[in-house]
Amino acid sequence: MKPAALSQRLEGVLAPAITPFRRDLSPDPDRFVRHCRSLLEHGCTGLAVFGTNSEANSLATEEKLELLDALRSAGVPMHLLMPGTGHCALADAVRMTREAVRMGCAGVLMLPPFYYKDVSDEGLYRFFSEVIERTGEERLRLYLYHIPAVAQVPITPELIERLLERYLGIVAGVKDSSGDWEHTKSLLERFAARGFDVFAGSELFLLEGLRAGAKGCISATANVNATGIARVWRDWRSAGAERLQAEARAIRTIVQKFPMIPALKAITAQRTHDPEWRWLRPPLVELPAERERSLFAELAAAESAFPTPRGASQ
Amino acid sequence: MKPAALSQRLEGVLAPAITPFRRDLSPDPDRFVRHCRSLLEHGCTGLAVFGTNSEANSLATEEKLELLDALRSAGVPMHLLMPGTGHCALADAVRMTREAVRMGCAGVLMLPPFYYKDVSDEGLYRFFSEVIERTGEERLRLYLYHIPAVAQVPITPELIERLLERYLGIVAGVKDSSGDWEHTKSLLERFAARGFDVFAGSELFLLEGLRAGAKGCISATANVNATGIARVWRDWRSAGAERLQAEARAIRTIVQKFPMIPALKAITAQRTHDPEWRWLRPPLVELPAERERSLFAELAAAESAFPTPRGASQ
Repeated sequence: MKPAALSQRLEGVLAPAITPFRRDLSPDPDRFVRHCRSLLEHGCTGLAVFGTNSEANSLATEEKLELLDALRSAGVPMHLLMPGTGHCALADAVRMTREAVRMGCAGVLMLPPFYYKDVSDEGLYRFFSEVIERTGEERLRLYLYHIPAVAQVPITPELIERLLERYLGIVAGVKDSSGDWEHTKSLLERFAARGFDVFAGSELFLLEGLRAGAKGCISATANVNATGIARVWRDWRSAGAERLQAEARAIRTIVQKFPMIPALKAITAQRTHDPEWRWLRPPLVELPAERERSLFAELAAAESAFPTPRGASQ
Repeated sequence: MKPAALSQRLEGVLAPAITPFRRDLSPDPDRFVRHCRSLLEHGCTGLAVFGTNSEANSLATEEKLELLDALRSAGVPMHLLMPGTGHCALADAVRMTREAVRMGCAGVLMLPPFYYKDVSDEGLYRFFSEVIERTGEERLRLYLYHIPAVAQVPITPELIERLLERYLGIVAGVKDSSGDWEHTKSLLERFAARGFDVFAGSELFLLEGLRAGAKGCISATANVNATGIARVWRDWRSAGAERLQAEARAIRTIVQKFPMIPALKAITAQRTHDPEWRWLRPPLVELPAERERSLFAELAAAESAFPTPRGASQ
């Protein structure tokens, strides 16, 4: 299958938007739309909805499709979306991917099937290949999601190589959540020149990444620091880039001392004065009140020390 | 929620029946029914369909429900079934569990949600608790599935303790696939007297387990050695029990030198003269022909050396 004429590829700062739940743990489309809009208003250039930090793997296919449809109905620009569509079951991955493409999403971010461990690259190649062929859409732009610490199933460079041999253009890039800059760098050196877009898995290496050819980052903390991270992206060639990067890094460093998803939800609850944002689906649990207070205090102290005006809080 | 008056609990040898696929990788209900029937005819006392070795985690909820319905329509006794109903997403786990109970299954075998790692017992407690409460069926018999090497999320004794405090009778037991006899033994010592049924995760410790109070085993290799394993179960108090156990162990030891699921499917394809049994869903891949030949040769050599007549091959 050949890729269709290239549409605009996503780049910049993408947020794996957190997913709001109601008290009964059902997803809340209205809050979701508001949060996604707010992220775009505060500088995110795209939304990687249904990522790890969206609790996507605690959502059924049907629930995700309803949330995606809510974004579309609300007029959120679908060409800025890169939803996560990976599932352990082929049928689920195909359904999610096909619907995402048909709804006009710019791309999809796909986990490998993650239940069976120590699987071969051949098996993973067949999985992605089946998804691509069954989706049957030349507009598909598939981004591979490498997050070995969580999925426990890596996307190896050899697998990328094989996929690019057959699906260059459709297999469009990778999110590298290895947390290892050397790994990101090696992917950039090996694949970036071939039109394979590398996104850092957090803003920790955003500036270094951009200088080495990365297309941006897809970062959990963009949920709570869209403004700060977007400044690095916007001004990365400027003299002040190092300082902006240091500020973004400082925020990230604080947040990631806490369990990430509960921390993002606690911060969002505080900023929006909406305690309902704290609901998490099990097996995740909320931060204890005392830990929340530490988090807020550390963030406030860090931000007050920044020389850059923060503008609207996000 | 109180448990309903106790129906007959499952015990003995349960097979996590392998799932047949057609060339297009769709599940094949007819072959599935035939295989399940054959397992019961050859001595299995129950069927733990949709286990790890059933490639259950490569199946969508809808696909599993269709296969379950095929068993029911074909007259397979539902009171001998303990389907796997665990999913990462609460909604999927609840739907599978509720349907299984309503179709008359004896119990369900439930994985913890396995995407997010390093989750707390509190989070897992909430997950299982939500599944039980939302299923809303006092007939539910929920067996916890401890398989840390694959799921990477363990079921700790502390979690079992908490669940039993609230759901004794509904939380009915555990399949211990730790592969560690000491762990199985500690579960037996701590929980068996309270009506919490412990199943060994393979036949390797079946005899030892039964002597220590286990209710039996749920073992992948029951797909290909139902007769041999069922003999241990039937005759475990007899003088010949050690020999029967040694024979079952010998078969298991050979099969588990190979990737388990491809090996089970290759053996089944050979015995039923039906090569279609070899289809696996990615990310799993079939055994290379040469490895298959080694497997068959090793099995034939082992079986010919057994003093016990094998009877019908299974």
